[in-house]
Amino acid sequence: MNANRPQPSPHLPLGDRRDAPFYGRDILEVAQFRRADLSHIFGVAREMREMVLRVGSFDLLKGKILASLFYEPSTRTASSFTAAMERLGGSVIPISEVRYSSVSKGESLPDTVRTLECYADVIVLRHPEVGAAKLAAKYARKPIINAGDGVGEHPTQALLDLFTIIEEAGRIDGLTVTLLGDLKNGRTVHSLARLLSMYDVKLNFVSPESLAFPEKILRELDEKGIAWEAHTELEAVLPRSDVLYVTRVQKERFSDPAHYARVKDAYVISPETLTHARPRMVLMHPLPRVGEITMEVDNDPRAAYFRQMEYGMYVRMALLAMVLGKA
Amino acid sequence: MNANRPQPSPHLPLGDRRDAPFYGRDILEVAQFRRADLSHIFGVAREMREMVLRVGSFDLLKGKILASLFYEPSTRTASSFTAAMERLGGSVIPISEVRYSSVSKGESLPDTVRTLECYADVIVLRHPEVGAAKLAAKYARKPIINAGDGVGEHPTQALLDLFTIIEEAGRIDGLTVTLLGDLKNGRTVHSLARLLSMYDVKLNFVSPESLAFPEKILRELDEKGIAWEAHTELEAVLPRSDVLYVTRVQKERFSDPAHYARVKDAYVISPETLTHARPRMVLMHPLPRVGEITMEVDNDPRAAYFRQMEYGMYVRMALLAMVLGKA
Amino acid sequence: MNANRPQPSPHLPLGDRRDAPFYGRDILEVAQFRRADLSHIFGVAREMREMVLRVGSFDLLKGKILASLFYEPSTRTASSFTAAMERLGGSVIPISEVRYSSVSKGESLPDTVRTLECYADVIVLRHPEVGAAKLAAKYARKPIINAGDGVGEHPTQALLDLFTIIEEAGRIDGLTVTLLGDLKNGRTVHSLARLLSMYDVKLNFVSPESLAFPEKILRELDEKGIAWEAHTELEAVLPRSDVLYVTRVQKERFSDPAHYARVKDAYVISPETLTHARPRMVLMHPLPRVGEITMEVDNDPRAAYFRQMEYGMYVRMALLAMVLGKA
Repeated sequence: MNANRPQPSPHLPLGDRRDAPFYGRDILEVAQFRRADLSHIFGVAREMREMVLRVGSFDLLKGKILASLFYEPSTRTASSFTAAMERLGGSVIPISEVRYSSVSKGESLPDTVRTLECYADVIVLRHPEVGAAKLAAKYARKPIINAGDGVGEHPTQALLDLFTIIEEAGRIDGLTVTLLGDLKNGRTVHSLARLLSMYDVKLNFVSPESLAFPEKILRELDEKGIAWEAHTELEAVLPRSDVLYVTRVQKERFSDPAHYARVKDAYVISPETLTHARPRMVLMHPLPRVGEITMEVDNDPRAAYFRQMEYGMYVRMALLAMVLGKA
Repeated sequence: MNANRPQPSPHLPLGDRRDAPFYGRDILEVAQFRRADLSHIFGVAREMREMVLRVGSFDLLKGKILASLFYEPSTRTASSFTAAMERLGGSVIPISEVRYSSVSKGESLPDTVRTLECYADVIVLRHPEVGAAKLAAKYARKPIINAGDGVGEHPTQALLDLFTIIEEAGRIDGLTVTLLGDLKNGRTVHSLARLLSMYDVKLNFVSPESLAFPEKILRELDEKGIAWEAHTELEAVLPRSDVLYVTRVQKERFSDPAHYARVKDAYVISPETLTHARPRMVLMHPLPRVGEITMEVDNDPRAAYFRQMEYGMYVRMALLAMVLGKA
Repeated sequence: MNANRPQPSPHLPLGDRRDAPFYGRDILEVAQFRRADLSHIFGVAREMREMVLRVGSFDLLKGKILASLFYEPSTRTASSFTAAMERLGGSVIPISEVRYSSVSKGESLPDTVRTLECYADVIVLRHPEVGAAKLAAKYARKPIINAGDGVGEHPTQALLDLFTIIEEAGRIDGLTVTLLGDLKNGRTVHSLARLLSMYDVKLNFVSPESLAFPEKILRELDEKGIAWEAHTELEAVLPRSDVLYVTRVQKERFSDPAHYARVKDAYVISPETLTHARPRMVLMHPLPRVGEITMEVDNDPRAAYFRQMEYGMYVRMALLAMVLGKA
């Protein structure tokens, strides 16, 4: 948000806590958070969880409106933000068919967000282009929450991943976290690794060589003194992993179909795989999955990926409440 | 819903009446209802109607969230459920563009519902494939309401049809109900006939021979001792019908266009047709209509098809309140 | 709405003020308003603005449901009505994918609105065909608000334009208002000119000759004694304009691309243009813009087009409250 821009109206509704941390701030990228920020967010997320379990929904954001602006579809993320807003008593303006909207008439993103902020109190933005959220935030007076900008950032996903690890494993410091799959193209694992590097963790990267974790981020880890290993086989690191984070290996990334088939099968998690894993390992996946974890695994108590979705709602409730000055 | 599956969180919000009939149950097919169930549902639907007429909306489901998951479009059904939830003070997560969502990335229905139930309290599902609702219910912990699964079931449509008959005719026992049109392909008339067979009714089936009511269900009626007649002309049975349920004869069902044109015109209900009908006959249609009933009929007090839409909202309000333990 | 039609149910919820002006009325075209009506609407809109600035949202329409029926997409208008309803505590049934709905199965508009009014309390309709809103209103018992019917009317846009002028300029009588761009095809400027002709104003029309303001409406202005001038250059009238209303010159209106390029550039408003304008001139645009006003102008205090969006929400809040008998 840009506090210096001329404001259509001095929106200062009664009861907003302007002194609250994160009040009026944008959520754009994981690099904006310090470790204390994360603790604070997760503390609020925990309160949200408690309230939801006790009463389902409550009126903390009653009267507040979220504009949910999705330039590309994402059922999961859009539904999660909608549920988060509704469980807080707020309302949502869903804008999901942007291809048919004024954008398709050629309107620029800055104009679209400056229109929507006349109606709404906060804007959640999903956009196919890197940097879209930052551009929107540059022009908007109201807070922008980045719900994914192309291969760029998806900070709320990274936050919910980290929150899942804390809640499931009870801590982060001291953990060994293994990231598996396409580690080259997945913004999810990049952001998660950066967040994890703020803690005392060991990281394992398991991927085909052609889909290895980016050198650039490995250098960042080195600078922060994070111990890491890169492997092409899961076997080597599975028994000493506290967390296994599985991602999709997308067919379209391969020029050679045979290579894809070989790699894909090598990284499928089945009940048999889990016999080699720690009894309390946390098995995660950002979903959707397409065969990377077999459905037989779903009933294993280590399978945390559906709980991960639920943690996501609490984290998004926390962020919405915080940027709107209510937490 | 599957109570034996591991639950992400023990969702037991304050105030839910776990002992309420239908609490936490799925609504999947008409065969799941006994006559006493129907009476109970219609009793609640009647209370809903009274409240709506008196106050418009009320907060029985305040804080509850419905995920409205439509894999194929249905304005009427989706709007009816949305209105039902909103008139009860609850909120809706609309998911209507599933072709662009994670489903199009290849996600399975079980994963989609297990994600959505992390956000919502009840899921309404419309799907083009027979058995989809049962599959969803097998994996979901939260109640699934089947809003149509291909040529399979559409139980809430059948319930609202029956409720319309009761409210308009004052009773069901003793009535003669005539079903007209394409009786072969319409799941609506199949389900309605099955529900009616739990009462003391006479049934007339009027259709072109090529679109006759299925033998299988006729045998079920025989077993239950329901008297029925099959005709190709409406004239024979119209004067002794208490209810006339009209359905569309869809062009695409015919290989011979001339046959379609002949049949289609034969079953058009006009003011002239109604001169041969009983003065208090109940004229129904599931809508949309495309010429099966002329617009001149709309002002005839026997035309019940728009009231039928309204009864539908009350039935869906009743079902939502019941499965969520609030009625 | 048609009060004479048989009503599915006597909807008379407690607390509706049947004696309120506009209660139960349709909003179809600007010609339906007298000057006193406009004063009344803008008075209510001003109250809405005050309430929104003070408390964000409030429960004036709690329990009321708006069916938002868009047969063609319009992010801006749909979002504005949704926000208006939600800030009044009401709910929305969004129906934006009509191409996939029962309409695509061939249902008529009268049937669609008669179905939706069984669920909702008011219907906002956007339709590509002239006269659609009137047709809908002829059949509906509930109020219809026309949100644009093809090249026909878009009355709420005209009302918000007028409200913007009043609020920004402090008055209307005595003003010189200049309309710029494609004045032939824009329903926006046609409706606005008609509304302005109820006041003591001077009008300037600046357009390429091929896109001149329609003779028919010029004759109406003459009959009402409104002074007007037509120009092809902005320079002549800019220095004496109190309001400059800019519209798009759409490429597809021109058979000769060279002509388009020449004309388009001639009407672009830049900071340089504004050096010739009055220091408190009100610069408006219905948005979306595609280059007619450069982004460098946005920070000029005269740039009123984003505030215009916000005024639109207040006007729509006022109209919704009024037709529902709550203001």
